[in-house]
Amino acid sequence: MRPDGRKNDELRPIKIEKNFIKNADGSVLIELGNTRVICTASIENKVPPFLKDQKKGWITAEYGMLPRSTPVRMLRESTSGRVGGRTHEIQRLIGRTLRAVVDLEKLGERTIWIDCDVIEADGGTRTASITGGYIALVEAVKKAMNAGMITENPIKDSIAAISVGIVLGEPRLDLCYAEDSQAEVDMNIVMTGSGKFIEIQGTAEIYPFSKENLLQLLSLAEKGIREIIRVINNLD
Amino acid sequence: MRPDGRKNDELRPIKIEKNFIKNADGSVLIELGNTRVICTASIENKVPPFLKDQKKGWITAEYGMLPRSTPVRMLRESTSGRVGGRTHEIQRLIGRTLRAVVDLEKLGERTIWIDCDVIEADGGTRTASITGGYIALVEAVKKAMNAGMITENPIKDSIAAISVGIVLGEPRLDLCYAEDSQAEVDMNIVMTGSGKFIEIQGTAEIYPFSKENLLQLLSLAEKGIREIIRVINNLD
Amino acid sequence: MRPDGRKNDELRPIKIEKNFIKNADGSVLIELGNTRVICTASIENKVPPFLKDQKKGWITAEYGMLPRSTPVRMLRESTSGRVGGRTHEIQRLIGRTLRAVVDLEKLGERTIWIDCDVIEADGGTRTASITGGYIALVEAVKKAMNAGMITENPIKDSIAAISVGIVLGEPRLDLCYAEDSQAEVDMNIVMTGSGKFIEIQGTAEIYPFSKENLLQLLSLAEKGIREIIRVINNLD
Amino acid sequence: MRPDGRKNDELRPIKIEKNFIKNADGSVLIELGNTRVICTASIENKVPPFLKDQKKGWITAEYGMLPRSTPVRMLRESTSGRVGGRTHEIQRLIGRTLRAVVDLEKLGERTIWIDCDVIEADGGTRTASITGGYIALVEAVKKAMNAGMITENPIKDSIAAISVGIVLGEPRLDLCYAEDSQAEVDMNIVMTGSGKFIEIQGTAEIYPFSKENLLQLLSLAEKGIREIIRVINNLD
Amino acid sequence: MRPDGRKNDELRPIKIEKNFIKNADGSVLIELGNTRVICTASIENKVPPFLKDQKKGWITAEYGMLPRSTPVRMLRESTSGRVGGRTHEIQRLIGRTLRAVVDLEKLGERTIWIDCDVIEADGGTRTASITGGYIALVEAVKKAMNAGMITENPIKDSIAAISVGIVLGEPRLDLCYAEDSQAEVDMNIVMTGSGKFIEIQGTAEIYPFSKENLLQLLSLAEKGIREIIRVINNLD
Amino acid sequence: MRPDGRKNDELRPIKIEKNFIKNADGSVLIELGNTRVICTASIENKVPPFLKDQKKGWITAEYGMLPRSTPVRMLRESTSGRVGGRTHEIQRLIGRTLRAVVDLEKLGERTIWIDCDVIEADGGTRTASITGGYIALVEAVKKAMNAGMITENPIKDSIAAISVGIVLGEPRLDLCYAEDSQAEVDMNIVMTGSGKFIEIQGTAEIYPFSKENLLQLLSLAEKGIREIIRVINNLD
Repeated sequence: MRPDGRKNDELRPIKIEKNFIKNADGSVLIELGNTRVICTASIENKVPPFLKDQKKGWITAEYGMLPRSTPVRMLRESTSGRVGGRTHEIQRLIGRTLRAVVDLEKLGERTIWIDCDVIEADGGTRTASITGGYIALVEAVKKAMNAGMITENPIKDSIAAISVGIVLGEPRLDLCYAEDSQAEVDMNIVMTGSGKFIEIQGTAEIYPFSKENLLQLLSLAEKGIREIIRVINNLD
Repeated sequence: MRPDGRKNDELRPIKIEKNFIKNADGSVLIELGNTRVICTASIENKVPPFLKDQKKGWITAEYGMLPRSTPVRMLRESTSGRVGGRTHEIQRLIGRTLRAVVDLEKLGERTIWIDCDVIEADGGTRTASITGGYIALVEAVKKAMNAGMITENPIKDSIAAISVGIVLGEPRLDLCYAEDSQAEVDMNIVMTGSGKFIEIQGTAEIYPFSKENLLQLLSLAEKGIREIIRVINNLD
Repeated sequence: MRPDGRKNDELRPIKIEKNFIKNADGSVLIELGNTRVICTASIENKVPPFLKDQKKGWITAEYGMLPRSTPVRMLRESTSGRVGGRTHEIQRLIGRTLRAVVDLEKLGERTIWIDCDVIEADGGTRTASITGGYIALVEAVKKAMNAGMITENPIKDSIAAISVGIVLGEPRLDLCYAEDSQAEVDMNIVMTGSGKFIEIQGTAEIYPFSKENLLQLLSLAEKGIREIIRVINNLD
Repeated sequence: MRPDGRKNDELRPIKIEKNFIKNADGSVLIELGNTRVICTASIENKVPPFLKDQKKGWITAEYGMLPRSTPVRMLRESTSGRVGGRTHEIQRLIGRTLRAVVDLEKLGERTIWIDCDVIEADGGTRTASITGGYIALVEAVKKAMNAGMITENPIKDSIAAISVGIVLGEPRLDLCYAEDSQAEVDMNIVMTGSGKFIEIQGTAEIYPFSKENLLQLLSLAEKGIREIIRVINNLD
Repeated sequence: MRPDGRKNDELRPIKIEKNFIKNADGSVLIELGNTRVICTASIENKVPPFLKDQKKGWITAEYGMLPRSTPVRMLRESTSGRVGGRTHEIQRLIGRTLRAVVDLEKLGERTIWIDCDVIEADGGTRTASITGGYIALVEAVKKAMNAGMITENPIKDSIAAISVGIVLGEPRLDLCYAEDSQAEVDMNIVMTGSGKFIEIQGTAEIYPFSKENLLQLLSLAEKGIREIIRVINNLD
Repeated sequence: MRPDGRKNDELRPIKIEKNFIKNADGSVLIELGNTRVICTASIENKVPPFLKDQKKGWITAEYGMLPRSTPVRMLRESTSGRVGGRTHEIQRLIGRTLRAVVDLEKLGERTIWIDCDVIEADGGTRTASITGGYIALVEAVKKAMNAGMITENPIKDSIAAISVGIVLGEPRLDLCYAEDSQAEVDMNIVMTGSGKFIEIQGTAEIYPFSKENLLQLLSLAEKGIREIIRVINNLD
């Protein structure tokens, strides 16, 4: 049985509070069970040097964890003076997947910064950040369209992300930290509202997995992502 | 008149939500008007090297701002690779003032980390961090006493902090950002519940100030701090 | 047609020169077409702090590129003072996948460092590094067993890695840089000699992909990896 | 009694050697007892980015300590690769207080860099740096006026700084290191020649202090600063 | 007798493989006994800021060692986040000596980057880097002249470098690591093809040396450099 | 003619003020013409890790320049966060040459730190640092012997250093900055009181030099160093 009594194909309760940070162009506090992430979107009227004069925009993400988002206090990355490898990996993933559903030309020469700051961590912080980042992005785009900065909606599809894995030999949806840390196989999946894949990252943590395992996990992820997309679509 | 219609000796509305971060030993979300800070306290069973074998504890603070806590997105300090001068100054202030009301010997050979993370900034973030940090500290000490880690209460007095300043020639209590940025004189005061000073930091931003100005500002601060202490004492 | 005239399911020529760096415990110069990577394995008789007293070993990897491994000279990471996000991501991938085929307890309290330094880059440097890192690892383990440092072979299975992708609508095996940079979908696959998955990383670069696309790419990767494993098995 | 036999309201001997560094636009070696600081002023014909096109100048300060300015050799900050929190705090203080007596518009689009390097430290290095920095600044301004770079004198008032504190229950002026390290209350005061306050920084090191204590310390500081200003006015 | 049986005035076998890195403008794998260095030359069409608008070019060098170029694995400089003192010293030496034989005005406003990466180290890596860097530089200049980028040959003379030293009281040519680490006197000499000195760096490692010792070592170095220049001149 | 009217074989006026920094174990302010360096020696009762349990001591040096030691203000290395290549090179040189005249076993398990801080720079700062560092070292050793920390004098010989060079075709002794910056050949020589070489660093800045040039420069340096040694021997 799962630590919190869920069925293997059941998500943790989702709670989404939009407009959590008034200063931001778009923002959300997203909660999946005990995992809580503040996501903001910030529009900047310039693009990074490598996009200069290409008449298109950019979306980039940064990810952080408050020192006491974890059961044992973590060292602050600003104090250590280095952004760690895991952080780099996660922020590249968030930026890349969000860019996949945005028409960067319609964005114009603008950068949208997505900041995902984990205030409590209980597994699945990177997938919650993608989902929350998407919601904040949509809010910021709406605001920019209302202000006439952007004329055509650059967002091509909705997206959401979830983790799946094999724990004690069972394929399970939406792993909490206790499951994640003992998973035999661990996978993060990002999909569009239209049911296609944006990103698959599957890792054999304890033993290699078969194609059959892979297909089971993909089905679980599809189910979970469909449910999250439904929640997003029903927000105000 | 003040930007938000307050009287010169009036605080902004205070809201304090304790136990905001479940993982922490003590935590609070403190709000003064639009300024919002998450404060956590974390107990670690060791002391920094310079206190080795002195049979006493330590309290240290770290302060950060989420990138979009401000109207214009700030660079993340972990990204710049350096903790800035202002951050250093603030975290030294928080740690020093909290240590002033704690009997470090009663704490035993432990460090309490106070993390203050600003999620929205509208002036007074350092004083809100001291007040919030104190509340989180008290919660953590209670928890440690309940667990039998600490036998005698090491907290000697309550403390709270507020900013005051001279704006457009008028002494004012609890400056919001719009006032702070045009203040002629700017002062941060930390006092105990018993009415004594822990820290006075007064700066002539535009013109030097007289002893009379100083005394007016101290009176305003005393009034504000008394009110905040009353709110803290009435929490659950 | 592919830039180098290959068929879509055809690997680039592989060349493997073992014992390329005499000082190392195991080493190889691996070439896939114009991609060339020096991989070394170094045995150190201690483990990282987090494994202290757990009676098991560790495998960790570092990855670098010579400044002129690329058509345009790159900034040296030692000069920039920071290991970049892409580098972090790759070295975490190499370490994780190699650990997946090693019984760390049989290794004893030792760390094996795998260093992968790209001397020429033409796509697929991370998968070549995994394959080359595996060969260097095997050499180092042999040497340690001959020296009596290790008594039982800790390597549980062989592994190899390859990239696949969709380019101009066609699923292709082993992308060179010209293909990789215009791929619609890009995937790195790591598999064992026994045909199971260690890692799947698939990314929609230009458009989301379907489950059918995924299955085609996995088949291509399986074919390529089987061929590489055969080459490895036939070395000396 | 005080360690060096002074009365509680007595300054240590002051020695000021102007033009100590020939290369600088203004320079001084200032000594207060055993505390010795080299201060230089350097005029640069540009302003920091945030002042661009505002038709005014800037004054900024940097502070350092030679490794053997202290009884036990300190680590060099260039070696540690980080400017510490205390250094940041002090250099911000020096810059801010000097700017308070300068009309930045009369300075024109120039930056004056004040460098304060402690060659021997025996308490009061930050206040000696402010006083010495002011003298170097005046020299540099004179030189710039003689050269016709600046037409109207931008310096509005003289300034000096001193530390005061409560030691063994007694309010004392100009603490040496032995006193500073055991002070119950510690205060740094910066005042103008016209008797007004530029900065007050008071800290309860051992116990909170009353308003009465504060007023005693302010009177001591006023007396000391008046004496220092007199010395400055009598130079050459 | 010498560890490898050479006579005191005998070089180790030299092997030079030009065009080792296809991507580079010029490249070489140079081997002196067991010391092996990859040198590349990269032409960039701009100059460093300090040469702006001076109508001349620049040559600069960077030096690195693969982590397992040494018998015991070294920490990667990118990982430590700092380029060490020895590396700085060597890359300044390489750049300075190569510039001494180049007419920077004939180069035009271009920078040539010389990268020297040691893949195996057995003494003399800095002198091998100078010799190899020179060969790569010549190749890059030829390529630039063929492409019409440069019209007149900027290279004024050939250069080569070698180490000499006093070991067990005997002056010896081309020290291997075992000799270098016990040398009483250690000297690196860079000379032109026309027999003049570019750089002499002699260090008393164990005891001070006389002018007579110096002259013996210079003669040995002259002999060795003449032989290396002959090898270079005979390359295809 | 030389900028300051000296003859080609004439030193600039030397001034040596011992015990300049009271806190240090040994200290000196050394001046050669307008070049002024504060050198201190600090004894620490431990050795670096690589000398652990070898029953011998170590001497290491650090070198810095005050920001306004130069005609145009330099960036502070602590601010840039990096110790530059030139600084690294110089401090390695100072440490190496001082170690050459000290019997490290007689020093016992101690480190002597030599800090050389340039307060005004007019050429020859590295050679002045070696000479000044030697004087500070001698003072510190005397103090340690008086205190009974060291029983036998570990200093085997005196040492001094000077720069020489070819300027406008003429060999000259003790170059000032104006000469150094236009020198055709530039050489730094370190010798013992007994007339032997510790270090020779000669660089062709504009054209390669002959053995005859070398011998002329060595003679000039010998003359200068003999004179400096005489000054040192005549101090109190």
